[in-house]
Amino acid sequence: MFKTVELGRKMSKEKFREALPKLREDLLAAHSELREKKLSVIFIMAGADAAGKGEVVQRLTEWLDPHGVDTYAFWEADSGDLPANARYWHAMPGRGRIGIFFGSWYTAPMVEKVYGKWKAKDFNKALSRIVFFENMLVEDGTIIVKIWLHLSKKEQEKAIKKLEKDGRATGKDWKHFKMYDKFMEVSEQIVSQTDSGPAPWHLVEAADRRHREFTCGSILLKAIRSRLAALKAKSSEKNAVIQVNIPDAGEISVLDKVDLNEKLTEEEYRKSIEKYQTRLSKLAWTAFEKKRSMVLVFEGWDAAGKGGAIRRVIEAMDPRLYRVVGIAAPTDEERAQHYLWRFWRRLPYPAGTTTIFDRSWYGRVLVERVEGFAPVADWSRAYLEINDFEDQMVSHGIILNKFFLHISPEEQLKRFKERETVAYKHFKITQEDWRNRNKWDDYEIAINEMIIRCGTAMAPWTLVAANDKHFARIQVLKTVVKSLENAL
Amino acid sequence: MFKTVELGRKMSKEKFREALPKLREDLLAAHSELREKKLSVIFIMAGADAAGKGEVVQRLTEWLDPHGVDTYAFWEADSGDLPANARYWHAMPGRGRIGIFFGSWYTAPMVEKVYGKWKAKDFNKALSRIVFFENMLVEDGTIIVKIWLHLSKKEQEKAIKKLEKDGRATGKDWKHFKMYDKFMEVSEQIVSQTDSGPAPWHLVEAADRRHREFTCGSILLKAIRSRLAALKAKSSEKNAVIQVNIPDAGEISVLDKVDLNEKLTEEEYRKSIEKYQTRLSKLAWTAFEKKRSMVLVFEGWDAAGKGGAIRRVIEAMDPRLYRVVGIAAPTDEERAQHYLWRFWRRLPYPAGTTTIFDRSWYGRVLVERVEGFAPVADWSRAYLEINDFEDQMVSHGIILNKFFLHISPEEQLKRFKERETVAYKHFKITQEDWRNRNKWDDYEIAINEMIIRCGTAMAPWTLVAANDKHFARIQVLKTVVKSLENAL
Repeated sequence: MFKTVELGRKMSKEKFREALPKLREDLLAAHSELREKKLSVIFIMAGADAAGKGEVVQRLTEWLDPHGVDTYAFWEADSGDLPANARYWHAMPGRGRIGIFFGSWYTAPMVEKVYGKWKAKDFNKALSRIVFFENMLVEDGTIIVKIWLHLSKKEQEKAIKKLEKDGRATGKDWKHFKMYDKFMEVSEQIVSQTDSGPAPWHLVEAADRRHREFTCGSILLKAIRSRLAALKAKSSEKNAVIQVNIPDAGEISVLDKVDLNEKLTEEEYRKSIEKYQTRLSKLAWTAFEKKRSMVLVFEGWDAAGKGGAIRRVIEAMDPRLYRVVGIAAPTDEERAQHYLWRFWRRLPYPAGTTTIFDRSWYGRVLVERVEGFAPVADWSRAYLEINDFEDQMVSHGIILNKFFLHISPEEQLKRFKERETVAYKHFKITQEDWRNRNKWDDYEIAINEMIIRCGTAMAPWTLVAANDKHFARIQVLKTVVKSLENAL
Repeated sequence: MFKTVELGRKMSKEKFREALPKLREDLLAAHSELREKKLSVIFIMAGADAAGKGEVVQRLTEWLDPHGVDTYAFWEADSGDLPANARYWHAMPGRGRIGIFFGSWYTAPMVEKVYGKWKAKDFNKALSRIVFFENMLVEDGTIIVKIWLHLSKKEQEKAIKKLEKDGRATGKDWKHFKMYDKFMEVSEQIVSQTDSGPAPWHLVEAADRRHREFTCGSILLKAIRSRLAALKAKSSEKNAVIQVNIPDAGEISVLDKVDLNEKLTEEEYRKSIEKYQTRLSKLAWTAFEKKRSMVLVFEGWDAAGKGGAIRRVIEAMDPRLYRVVGIAAPTDEERAQHYLWRFWRRLPYPAGTTTIFDRSWYGRVLVERVEGFAPVADWSRAYLEINDFEDQMVSHGIILNKFFLHISPEEQLKRFKERETVAYKHFKITQEDWRNRNKWDDYEIAINEMIIRCGTAMAPWTLVAANDKHFARIQVLKTVVKSLENAL
């Protein structure tokens, strides 16, 4: 594949000078339209050592508006506290911005494979995760431009010698040069397996400076333009047909299987809560010592008792070991990103601590679906995105528990009325709660689908019978304790 | 001082049980009013080892709404990449939230003094910096509650023995116990020197669990309430008299001393730019190797050529080594913090890189002053705050250059007109530019005062004669190069 681009392409000084002003003007205009349309760009600069990646990026930042561009080198080694993708999420360009990534999610597969540290299975899994990840970003309005600068073996040798003359070559350059063929082999695998429609690779012959710089600029311009054009075309066909599973009314839902008659006596409750809180209190410290983070997700009907259940969990934990994150309307920095971004930034840190989400990323397939805040295409894609997100957590060693607190509509009504009459509970009930209640059936459909599609083997749901608050709290505590005991 | 609180205070179980419901209810109500009024709380938990700091915090988080509380332990050692206060800025509770800090800006002075690593001068400087810092946060709407849990020597011994029985004592506990008197001595110095009116210390006898927990809860409640009360009282006397230096019209300003006739020929410009860019290009890498970060601040009249000057600087630098931050309207996460927060979060990281601010924290004393966005009390306080901020940068080893690009009103008019007629410059001129121009005299007063009051020896201003763009760009480049050469 790489051989085929070795055509000796060059660009003359005159041609470069002549063509440049137009390219720069067009790039500036494209950048400004990008901002207007709230699209973002991730520009991935990959390729051979000594191929001039730094120079190309320097040139591009010169041509673009520097206020809208952030360059990331991902220099520092990862602490390992968070799933590997966290560092890229933290560097994600917000809508309207351009992020230039030196090194990226391609670095680890490349290095680990060349040095023979990963098995084929891990390598392939990493690549298909990348395809999924890039696709997800593209769907969300990111333009991904991936450039691979290619040098033939002879050219690379020449380039490293030149670096050497300038005192800029390192031992690693020569070491890698000796592994040229191995690098080519792995590069081909990577490029061919991740050369997807939404985020294609561009192989650029890198020997001639002017050719590579002008070509990279042109590729960036073209990528932005074609996305803008697609956007215009798309707005006319917005209502694409998407297949959605809507169960027939009356069909049995997973929630029907929850036995809402479960309850505990005051005595049983008191004994159990002491038992599990004592265990949790120690387990939380053990998890910290062993650097095993935990994520707890609480979903459930309004007034199902999420807050009370969370309180019984944190009562047992040292406050230095957890953080409670209530999910309400996103901030404007969050709105400028993919919807998963706000959860990535709240993952437990440092390693060994716990984040408790009071409502979560499942809002995407619950409230955003039912209220129509997200178009069908967006929320129906979310099941896969969420499964992948949770898979990344669990694969990284994070202990994940997801709770859905289920109550009957009658119980909810009772609790709403109580909230309205008891003074210090009054602040807990709003008009919105009543509105949500009227959409019970729509929510039930959405909940049912969520539990089925995101109840994966690796991240199962715990359905909590919550008509009896005591029973619910113990079920939650017990599940958390058991999951920690299993994991530690 | 500490001896005097050793009164053997206790709280009986009955009294605790009886008083608690009211305290909890009041705390919840206060927390909710806090949110409404957009005030924040920093609760600093300090004091003797084994005094029960963790337990108190655990209790408080139980009593408050956990969604509005974040607890920080500052466990990890500081990387040293950023000025020491950066970690506290990153943990700052936004408006409406409560941040509980275990360990805080008091930890370093305490430890370093007890172990004899700091001289008296450094210790005293650190303490007065703390007073200033806390005062600044209080002025901005933060309630600072500082609690020092005290144990007599005998009580501490008992407490450590108890920890030992539970398997929770460490060698450090006994080591520190042997240094009890030394700790007391330094604690007294710290408490007495930082016991300011806006952020007073509360010494709490810690031997009795119920007494210390209830007392800490009550102190927190009282602190919030008294601030809320003060807020109500204050709204009636908002127009407190604040002394502002306004020079007489026609008085000579520092800007008048800038020789706007300075210019360079095309030839001189070309030679100089090559010379300085070549040097800068290498210096930037040297700075990175030596981990010396740099901050460049660009201020100036509209159309003074800030963008062009910045471009000539970054042309010379590898894009992995700098970040350009354009300062426009704050995001809502930024609005929820002290105005300096958004700059703290953008300081150069990792160590050895450069952040270029296109407009900066000086907006506080320029646009916010002239347009009346900030009340007089706020912007007039800002000079000191800014000097302290810059002092922290420079003391940390950051190379700081501040440029003010000065042009004449006639030159500005010429450039505005050019921008309006030249197609590709059109986007650079807005109605706001014309409005700002009409306030030239007000801005001149504000600029003059800013340059005088913030032109400190440690962070001087460079006034750039910018009627000639070539001259201005070279002056900027040269200053940056020289400052790097001096520092490295």
